[in-house]
Amino acid sequence: MPHRPPPSSLDSLLSRRARRETDTEVSEFMKRALDNPALISLAAGFVDQESLPCERVARLAGRLLADPHKGREALQYGTTLGDPGLRQAIARRFGRNAEGLAIDPENVIVTAGSQEFLYLLTEILIDPGDIALVEAPTYFVYAATLQGAGAQTVGLAVDNWGLLPEALEDALAKFDEAGQGDRVKLLYLMTYYANPRGTSYSWERRRAIFDIARRRAEAGRPFVIVEDIAYRELRYEGPDMPPLKSLDAEGALVAACGSFSKAFSPGLRTGYAIAPKPLAAALGRLKSNLDFGSPMFAQSLIREALESGEYDEHVADLRRRYRHKRDLALRAIEQNWPRQVRVLPPEGGLYLWAQLPRHVSADPGEELFERALRNDVLYIPGSLCYVPTPGRPRPCHEMRLCFGMIDDERLAEGLRRLGAALRELLDA
Amino acid sequence: MPHRPPPSSLDSLLSRRARRETDTEVSEFMKRALDNPALISLAAGFVDQESLPCERVARLAGRLLADPHKGREALQYGTTLGDPGLRQAIARRFGRNAEGLAIDPENVIVTAGSQEFLYLLTEILIDPGDIALVEAPTYFVYAATLQGAGAQTVGLAVDNWGLLPEALEDALAKFDEAGQGDRVKLLYLMTYYANPRGTSYSWERRRAIFDIARRRAEAGRPFVIVEDIAYRELRYEGPDMPPLKSLDAEGALVAACGSFSKAFSPGLRTGYAIAPKPLAAALGRLKSNLDFGSPMFAQSLIREALESGEYDEHVADLRRRYRHKRDLALRAIEQNWPRQVRVLPPEGGLYLWAQLPRHVSADPGEELFERALRNDVLYIPGSLCYVPTPGRPRPCHEMRLCFGMIDDERLAEGLRRLGAALRELLDA
Repeated sequence: MPHRPPPSSLDSLLSRRARRETDTEVSEFMKRALDNPALISLAAGFVDQESLPCERVARLAGRLLADPHKGREALQYGTTLGDPGLRQAIARRFGRNAEGLAIDPENVIVTAGSQEFLYLLTEILIDPGDIALVEAPTYFVYAATLQGAGAQTVGLAVDNWGLLPEALEDALAKFDEAGQGDRVKLLYLMTYYANPRGTSYSWERRRAIFDIARRRAEAGRPFVIVEDIAYRELRYEGPDMPPLKSLDAEGALVAACGSFSKAFSPGLRTGYAIAPKPLAAALGRLKSNLDFGSPMFAQSLIREALESGEYDEHVADLRRRYRHKRDLALRAIEQNWPRQVRVLPPEGGLYLWAQLPRHVSADPGEELFERALRNDVLYIPGSLCYVPTPGRPRPCHEMRLCFGMIDDERLAEGLRRLGAALRELLDA
Repeated sequence: MPHRPPPSSLDSLLSRRARRETDTEVSEFMKRALDNPALISLAAGFVDQESLPCERVARLAGRLLADPHKGREALQYGTTLGDPGLRQAIARRFGRNAEGLAIDPENVIVTAGSQEFLYLLTEILIDPGDIALVEAPTYFVYAATLQGAGAQTVGLAVDNWGLLPEALEDALAKFDEAGQGDRVKLLYLMTYYANPRGTSYSWERRRAIFDIARRRAEAGRPFVIVEDIAYRELRYEGPDMPPLKSLDAEGALVAACGSFSKAFSPGLRTGYAIAPKPLAAALGRLKSNLDFGSPMFAQSLIREALESGEYDEHVADLRRRYRHKRDLALRAIEQNWPRQVRVLPPEGGLYLWAQLPRHVSADPGEELFERALRNDVLYIPGSLCYVPTPGRPRPCHEMRLCFGMIDDERLAEGLRRLGAALRELLDA
């Protein structure tokens, strides 16, 4: 009989995929830190607790369920790709401010948050060893999804207007030279108020990145641009720019995904994507094996919210609320933090990205993080937002702060405490 | 440059997994058939349209959202494995009628229907080429999930008391001989009112199957028994038997999964599993990459339904309703079908399994199916419920009929029309 672990263990049964997946660094240290109830967390990307639309949802649910036709539809099974009415409403909303952009509802997929879409897309594109390009820094949850699929991930440099086109060109050229050019499957971008940096893509940058992808496809080496617009609705300043997807006239190169979690309610867990036409069928097949369609009740509530105007009103409320919190947070930083720390003021979204002097580490186990914990305040160490990239050490002098979830008082207090930790360290 | 499809196509980017997945035969012919609005479908496994609990859910949602604490919790993000209160309620309910069975809520996972659990479990166990044993016939949706994961599937003979233990022993011995014994990862069973046969496992059979799995684990070749109890609540006759899982005192060999879709509302898409302890962590990691937790709003509604008694009342209603429909369906068959067709009267669930004389095919394209379609009635050809098994042709003389969804009148009419098609064919 072959060598085997003791009979009580099922570890020997785990697939290669299960073995690739490990607890993320983030979940590990969050667990440790959250055992302290006095802690003020600037870490979790949850939405403002008080803003959650209890009254609106009660109204929408009441209306929906009082109508026997609509009510039963909402409580029955739906179709794999989602409620046709909701898909239409999403297509209309997505196309706003993008003249001439007509989104075919057939290419809209409704998912369990945008996360499920990111998972589905990754599964249908990535074989272990395939290449996924991401921003540096990027959204760490998606980085973990890519790792689970066995992708080689490469982080590309960004500035305040988005990914640097030359960084993309360089990476592609290097993979071509190494004979791996055809393993580049996707490029993941957050074009609006990115998690974690808070910056958005300029129009020129959107165009430049799309042009690289188009030229590459014309040369027979296509890759998919994954445009995550999760924070598009949370805009506090500046105009609403059309998505990068709007440049994709043939609908064949860009997958755009968004969510009603941040802008309405995470508890409904309803997201969506505008899939590239050639991939819609494969996405639908996988989703049908995974859950054969997202909950109709949540979909019906979101549809009702979109059609009745409740959604627009709520988004307007949220913008006021988060703009106020952003300003409050920036003021607290201005008043309490040492000048050596740079913070980018974001025009939208939920995050502040703070850059310390390069020699100061914000990592767990290092002095700042432990001092902050002793002061009962928690942040996300910036290094966790970088995928391991060969030949390029992960920067560790940055922090991600979420101003979304906690109330004004705790937000200001948390930033004061963090400021105290920073001053102790930097002024020492 | 290597040979490539034309640039507009992204097909070249698809992963091996995406290439394995094909549209199922079922979805193909359902699409074709459902284009006819006059059609009476005895095919789809949807639940009774009129039974959907609009008033109950309106009450539960109203109560939940009127309480600011509960309401906000329901509209916020939750945790990956599910709401702790719901997990406790599930553990309690699952353990009923199984003396001494204490389910640890830590091993309960809340998922998007039981389907998401089946997907997760398959992903963490199956590498392409690994072996999954299923009943013959089995639930065709899960068979497609196994195919997507690249499993070798093998169908094992059943009788009216469940899987034949000797069929399981034989299959294991054959794989051992072929040096593939350690690739057997799971055995999938429906122990209550199975889809499609409607039969349940006797207590002796539950024990015999579990004993084989236990002996195998003791010999260092464990596999996981996946016990799907989706229809347990829909019991119209006989006692409620403890699940096979209740034999698994150490909680290490059996994954049991169930759902609130059939017994409450598919539109809430909330299912659950009692995971084997050694697999809970791996399941959680994959779920956290997939959707980081099922919708809290639906979870909160189900929890409220369980705690308030609304769920129990609804299940009692459903039992009355479906018992009536089952009896009505059996009467319509008795009165209208030729005697050569045998139908097993089920004690629960939503399905009737009809067996034609062996020489008559119920397959699409064959005479009966096409006659039925011309009579505007649709069923699931039984052959679609068998996984391809080497050396064993798929039986094609059976039909699955769902009496769940449509109203009494259409149910009786559909069965009359199918009876007419059968008589034309068999009496010819």
